[in-house]
Amino acid sequence: MTYETLTTEIDADGICTLTLSRPEALNAFNLTMAGELADFWNGPATSDDIRAVVLTGAGRAFCAGMDLTREGNAFGLDESIDPTPESLREHLEDPAWVAGVRDTGGKVTLPMLALNKPIIAAINGSAVGIGATMTLAADIRLASTAARIGFVFGRLGIVPEACSSYFLPRIVGIQQALEWVYSADILTADAALAGRLVRSVHEPDDLVPAALELARSFVVGRSAVALALAKQLLYRNLSEADPFQAHLADSLAMFHSSAGADGHEGVAAFKEKRAAVFTSKPSDTPRVFPN
Amino acid sequence: MTYETLTTEIDADGICTLTLSRPEALNAFNLTMAGELADFWNGPATSDDIRAVVLTGAGRAFCAGMDLTREGNAFGLDESIDPTPESLREHLEDPAWVAGVRDTGGKVTLPMLALNKPIIAAINGSAVGIGATMTLAADIRLASTAARIGFVFGRLGIVPEACSSYFLPRIVGIQQALEWVYSADILTADAALAGRLVRSVHEPDDLVPAALELARSFVVGRSAVALALAKQLLYRNLSEADPFQAHLADSLAMFHSSAGADGHEGVAAFKEKRAAVFTSKPSDTPRVFPN
Amino acid sequence: MTYETLTTEIDADGICTLTLSRPEALNAFNLTMAGELADFWNGPATSDDIRAVVLTGAGRAFCAGMDLTREGNAFGLDESIDPTPESLREHLEDPAWVAGVRDTGGKVTLPMLALNKPIIAAINGSAVGIGATMTLAADIRLASTAARIGFVFGRLGIVPEACSSYFLPRIVGIQQALEWVYSADILTADAALAGRLVRSVHEPDDLVPAALELARSFVVGRSAVALALAKQLLYRNLSEADPFQAHLADSLAMFHSSAGADGHEGVAAFKEKRAAVFTSKPSDTPRVFPN
Repeated sequence: MTYETLTTEIDADGICTLTLSRPEALNAFNLTMAGELADFWNGPATSDDIRAVVLTGAGRAFCAGMDLTREGNAFGLDESIDPTPESLREHLEDPAWVAGVRDTGGKVTLPMLALNKPIIAAINGSAVGIGATMTLAADIRLASTAARIGFVFGRLGIVPEACSSYFLPRIVGIQQALEWVYSADILTADAALAGRLVRSVHEPDDLVPAALELARSFVVGRSAVALALAKQLLYRNLSEADPFQAHLADSLAMFHSSAGADGHEGVAAFKEKRAAVFTSKPSDTPRVFPN
Repeated sequence: MTYETLTTEIDADGICTLTLSRPEALNAFNLTMAGELADFWNGPATSDDIRAVVLTGAGRAFCAGMDLTREGNAFGLDESIDPTPESLREHLEDPAWVAGVRDTGGKVTLPMLALNKPIIAAINGSAVGIGATMTLAADIRLASTAARIGFVFGRLGIVPEACSSYFLPRIVGIQQALEWVYSADILTADAALAGRLVRSVHEPDDLVPAALELARSFVVGRSAVALALAKQLLYRNLSEADPFQAHLADSLAMFHSSAGADGHEGVAAFKEKRAAVFTSKPSDTPRVFPN
Repeated sequence: MTYETLTTEIDADGICTLTLSRPEALNAFNLTMAGELADFWNGPATSDDIRAVVLTGAGRAFCAGMDLTREGNAFGLDESIDPTPESLREHLEDPAWVAGVRDTGGKVTLPMLALNKPIIAAINGSAVGIGATMTLAADIRLASTAARIGFVFGRLGIVPEACSSYFLPRIVGIQQALEWVYSADILTADAALAGRLVRSVHEPDDLVPAALELARSFVVGRSAVALALAKQLLYRNLSEADPFQAHLADSLAMFHSSAGADGHEGVAAFKEKRAAVFTSKPSDTPRVFPN
């Protein structure tokens, strides 16, 4: 886990602090950072040594958005195709081409959603563009009073990315999501709290400690498998149209967790009025959805 | 309707108060109560004599969760299968086995969702585990100041059940749902109100009267069929991805209700500036969704 | 654009004010208005001369609901079919008949959702029945202190229509939606704000100016295509169960907008620290969803 644009630190409880570390550039997101984030979420983050991740930024910004100083398409997309609507429509007839058009931000956020452990974003300063949308794939967002959050895409002639149109309306509702994206304004921490984008606002020095404490409350003395299954159940069943299918998935998860070692230990500890000692690892998590 | 763990009382307006009644055990949910609740929601509750249900608990608790004192799998699940991930994955290849794994709580909450009349939970005290998740299948939740609500599954090494991963994020949003489930904390009534889990908080003595009054406002002088269709439309179309399909279902419901006796009476009463006298019964409700 | 029941006015920024104009009847919705609204949203509103629409009412009401004074089915539905549940169930076996049953309100709201530009409802007074549900297909709702909003269908023996069971729970959550529809009460502007139905409340004289200013902030100096794509992405991906499909759609939208003229201009203007001059038109919007 040696990265150019990121630092990681894992504490004794298995809580990993992942810090965006290009403070001289306000942690702007360049293609190196994109690749390293994708690598982290798909690789080291899945290790059983890590039970939860706190994501924050070094210095005074969280992430100032896409680094627009590079040559070619600033967003890393293939420009060999004429971007007229007509030409694009033709290419859209080609499923292989369509499947190959992958937004850079989404390559970072999809593995965050798939990660079978909690992620908390600690937004310490400016978080604009991909700096804002990246936090949406965290399960919970905390902000410092210094946070400034902006879905500023409209000002650049582009659209919200990083799968943010999937996450944002699920977090803040459709009306608030539309207004923030249409206006492309920079929100204060208080506005983000009022709109339910962030869970709480903290003094700058208290932010990361609060995020770490919250992460600790999620994992210390808790079953890793139960937590992983709960994350998966909540995201998936929010979008499951058929309640019976939702029930089948939570039945399988309940079967596995209650019949497994952690469920037996949890019940025994409850009866014996002692703290439970769970032994499962994140990688023990079974499949409970058909795909 | 003679139950060991439940009492029911139907008033002159057809509002049924269903009370969890094991006060000596803080109304803990055992397999007898599970069976009786499933029986009530699938059977007596569907009678045309009942227009709405208020669900509450006897004594100082609402429901202290699963009764963990029984032998075998505390949650009523089959333990003949080795609960290792490997063994479970094998069984997951068998669709018949998967379809047969049914969480006990879900057998209680799915018929609440399917019931074609309003359900109001009046949370009078502790509501933890299944005591909390059971209330999510009510349409509306009121809490007493004495209510203490906890999605405590994580502390027991198990997952939220009773189809709660379907309901909870729809009620409070994904961020709040994840935090409550991850933390497994006990919430005060005020925290539940702030998080939009409950609709209002009442003094203990005012709780059930407030719930009954709300139920009365829903059904007295109202069309039973219109109410039943509205419940179905709101839950189903919230999860309908295609707005045109949502439109077809509400068109059918509108056709039926406006062309039916209640719609004619409603319009006539409106024109004549008098109270409407509706005659439909819940069992008159037509199908407006393809399945 | 000459209508009997509507007036339209387009300002220099392309913001169209659409006013329901039957003030002598509190702008009640009759079949003429229904036809004219459907015509407007499907036709003139799609013109590139219009960048956003503000919808309001003339006089002291927004829209007092369906005009119930007409002969026959007050809601414009075919009554040649016996409206008993039995007869209706028989007809439901005929897909052509089912597909032909189209609620009048839905014919107005579906093209609002499909319109590729922002719509803001400025609710200036009474908005009941279709007067309330029509506003749900606007992206954002502002209310005057004089607004009174009611999903009053239950009092008329009918169901919420105009695809409102699709929109309402997405805007205010399932619990609030169920209560408002069940109670059929008239809400004050403050109650609508507390329930997150409206985005803000204004003094009567300030309402339309505030809506116009908000609309202006969405479109002046903004890319029409980026805005159109963002609207589509947020609504569609809110209901997309598979995050990977959501990602493919936003990738295509990002590809098109970043590789297109507006994306290049946006980045160039950002680098040169000047205001961007976007040139795309709403009709340039490409398809990014498979259907």
